[in-house]
Amino acid sequence: MELWVTEYQTPALGFSCKASETLRVKQTAFQHLAVVVTEQFGKMLLLDGMVQTTEKDEFVYHEMITMIALNAHPAPENVLIIGGGDGGALREVVRHPGVSRGTLVEIDEEVAQASRDFFPNHSCSFNDPKARLIIADGIQFIKDNRNAFDVVIVDSTEPVGPARALFTAPFYESVYQALKDDGMLVVQSESPFFNEDVIKMAYSGINEFFPITKLYLAAIPTYPSGLWSFTVGSKYYDPEKPVFTGELDFKYYTPEIHQAAFELPAFVKKIITEGV
Amino acid sequence: MELWVTEYQTPALGFSCKASETLRVKQTAFQHLAVVVTEQFGKMLLLDGMVQTTEKDEFVYHEMITMIALNAHPAPENVLIIGGGDGGALREVVRHPGVSRGTLVEIDEEVAQASRDFFPNHSCSFNDPKARLIIADGIQFIKDNRNAFDVVIVDSTEPVGPARALFTAPFYESVYQALKDDGMLVVQSESPFFNEDVIKMAYSGINEFFPITKLYLAAIPTYPSGLWSFTVGSKYYDPEKPVFTGELDFKYYTPEIHQAAFELPAFVKKIITEGV
Repeated sequence: MELWVTEYQTPALGFSCKASETLRVKQTAFQHLAVVVTEQFGKMLLLDGMVQTTEKDEFVYHEMITMIALNAHPAPENVLIIGGGDGGALREVVRHPGVSRGTLVEIDEEVAQASRDFFPNHSCSFNDPKARLIIADGIQFIKDNRNAFDVVIVDSTEPVGPARALFTAPFYESVYQALKDDGMLVVQSESPFFNEDVIKMAYSGINEFFPITKLYLAAIPTYPSGLWSFTVGSKYYDPEKPVFTGELDFKYYTPEIHQAAFELPAFVKKIITEGV
Repeated sequence: MELWVTEYQTPALGFSCKASETLRVKQTAFQHLAVVVTEQFGKMLLLDGMVQTTEKDEFVYHEMITMIALNAHPAPENVLIIGGGDGGALREVVRHPGVSRGTLVEIDEEVAQASRDFFPNHSCSFNDPKARLIIADGIQFIKDNRNAFDVVIVDSTEPVGPARALFTAPFYESVYQALKDDGMLVVQSESPFFNEDVIKMAYSGINEFFPITKLYLAAIPTYPSGLWSFTVGSKYYDPEKPVFTGELDFKYYTPEIHQAAFELPAFVKKIITEGV
């Protein structure tokens, strides 16, 4: 047989990977979850039909959603991740020598379980002594914390379903309160080619509360358009400037990429200057 | 009906666009040519089933294959493009105020004709007083010229079929001879995620003859993986440094993007340091 898994990245654009088998297909309490073995990218996790992570290209997303803030903050000791239940971002957080505690709050325990069962290179982080995995609603968790974290990372799905509230101003205000006085927030904010509206929503929402708001980019083959954006809100430090000078082994991130990622193509610059 | 056009970007990866109709489907003397109207990217030109250019995202490729060299060379008066018969790169070349002549040498006249018939925003360049369109074999054309050009741009298809010879050392040597003493060569060199071999071939071939060889990147949604590489060979000037200070209206290029495009993710850096 020929088996192909297709994500309709937009109603008019299909992204199809040749597959050999499905390892898990189920409806959880929150979303439709699937793990598929693809030829091009290895094992792939899909939520509501959208590619979340694959073995082959996960390094870009996970290095870039974590290391910009971690390396721009001089003491990122206490880090919170909301979403990202596969554990890939947590893996990067806990291997950073500046971090003493990495807390992951995931709403859907089935995501963490799928990772434990099929993505050992992601879920290895769950066993790290610095790590804490909490199955709970991130929005409530954030409200229950004040002045607690150095860095908060929002590793969410796109703003439909359970992730919708993660792109609203009230949520960003809660994060602002949960961060220490020199804290930093990073959120994934979708593709500048296809999701202008999401970028404007994240950028203007964050910009309402944080004195420094910036957008940066990374190239991720399995995400729509291949170009992905992240939005940072910072209370004090400039997120563009890496201050960590230690040695870590990366496949995508370098200190030069750290700064280059903030240089935006003209049309992307226009999205955020028009959007605020 | 539902009509979808699919490029198999690799044997295990399909890129599918919803389409409304085909405007041209024919076998030329050199390749299979198709023009399709897609919902996501507007009109799309395919050669041998591979997306070459679309109305919506062509700006990235055409600005980035031309403006790096044109803006790093202080006097890019005489510019040659090999391939690129759609005229998009030529459009960028002739609008640059430093250029007095832009010559396009395309082997397949049907590509230029399809552009005239369906891509007015590309083929408008053919009528520019600075432009010269020649239907001929670029490899022979290059051999017939010595010390003639300031910038040579190779806007080819991937190294199969007619474009194969454009990725070999003898061709790069001919280009070296065809360039003036301070000339610069730019070639498109495919995706760092999927075409490591092509990058190594281009980089090491160019590096054999040119004292300065550098790789840079741009984000192109309709090309495999969304991340595209270009390799520059320069006889004298540093291609990373923009020296043009005039005003031109761009959708992707900025002087900051010019420099940031040369900052390579760790895994891309590895491809070229291992490859030479």
